Amino acid sequence: MKKKSLPLAKVYQLLEPGPVIMVTTKSAKGKPNIMTMTWQMMVDFVPPILAFVMSEDNYSFKALKATKECVINIPAADLVKTAVAIGECSGSKVDKFKKFNLTPEKASLVKAPLIGECFANLECKVIDMKMAKKYNIFILEVVKAWITTSKKRQRMLHHCGNGLFTIDGKTVKLPFSKK
Amino acid sequence: MKKKSLPLAKVYQLLEPGPVIMVTTKSAKGKPNIMTMTWQMMVDFVPPILAFVMSEDNYSFKALKATKECVINIPAADLVKTAVAIGECSGSKVDKFKKFNLTPEKASLVKAPLIGECFANLECKVIDMKMAKKYNIFILEVVKAWITTSKKRQRMLHHCGNGLFTIDGKTVKLPFSKK
Repeated sequence: MKKKSLPLAKVYQLLEPGPVIMVTTKSAKGKPNIMTMTWQMMVDFVPPILAFVMSEDNYSFKALKATKECVINIPAADLVKTAVAIGECSGSKVDKFKKFNLTPEKASLVKAPLIGECFANLECKVIDMKMAKKYNIFILEVVKAWITTSKKRQRMLHHCGNGLFTIDGKTVKLPFSKK
Repeated sequence: MKKKSLPLAKVYQLLEPGPVIMVTTKSAKGKPNIMTMTWQMMVDFVPPILAFVMSEDNYSFKALKATKECVINIPAADLVKTAVAIGECSGSKVDKFKKFNLTPEKASLVKAPLIGECFANLECKVIDMKMAKKYNIFILEVVKAWITTSKKRQRMLHHCGNGLFTIDGKTVKLPFSKK
């Protein structure tokens, strides 16, 4: 999917709606992995700061903690089966890029790969782990963002638990004076 | 809207999809207020722990900090105009329940009111404010949850910035072995 740079000030427009995301890491030894996640929120607009929850039970945890880098990849609805399947197996046993036929692409500012098939990719650096021990909360800064050049509407996924997802439906635009 | 108690273990199914929420507080002096918000995430399943971002620029901040209580109210799509209008004015100037013709209902375990017109209400207590100063992040525990008894599908709102919202559309159910 062809991408262009997305201004950092627009990153919140991707994360605020609460999409399913796929987080890629690269271990200190160079092994890439993917984790599907839905527990994340924006914390500040510019620079874009976010928080997410990753526990030490997740195979990606070690790589994230060691390298302090990851990429948040946002799948459109057509990747729903892949997103679930990625969440159902562990990177300790499989190379998820190979198993799910996904394309690792080189990021510009972090070592973790972008997922080529996702319509947006946010390169992130961990800036605070003080809440990681007690709540598994990591604070991250988005340092570079990419978005597809396609004009096609990208419908995001929202997880309602137990494998039930809603897909973005109708849109409503209202007059709005604030961010 | 008639409600029934929702098991706390199911709370994540409401917050994980990333809906627009309306947070109600009641100041130490007894004044209720409402704030529309979209920066929140789940942190743990049971008891349900969540995090949200509220800054001291928000009028609700003082009440939340003083009382350590609030209610997270989830509006369905028909309340989109109200949700935006609530975000466009300050509780320092208006009584938002009156202005927007919303019904404050008594909560069971906190002093802040439920919004009767919202299809779900989560009574919350603040359990950690260590990240409030630096990041405006509050950690909360849901102590009681309510959900409408209506069988009608409740479509949630997702904010994409600048007054553009998507409404829950089609659903997909996939086999799923984990939460």
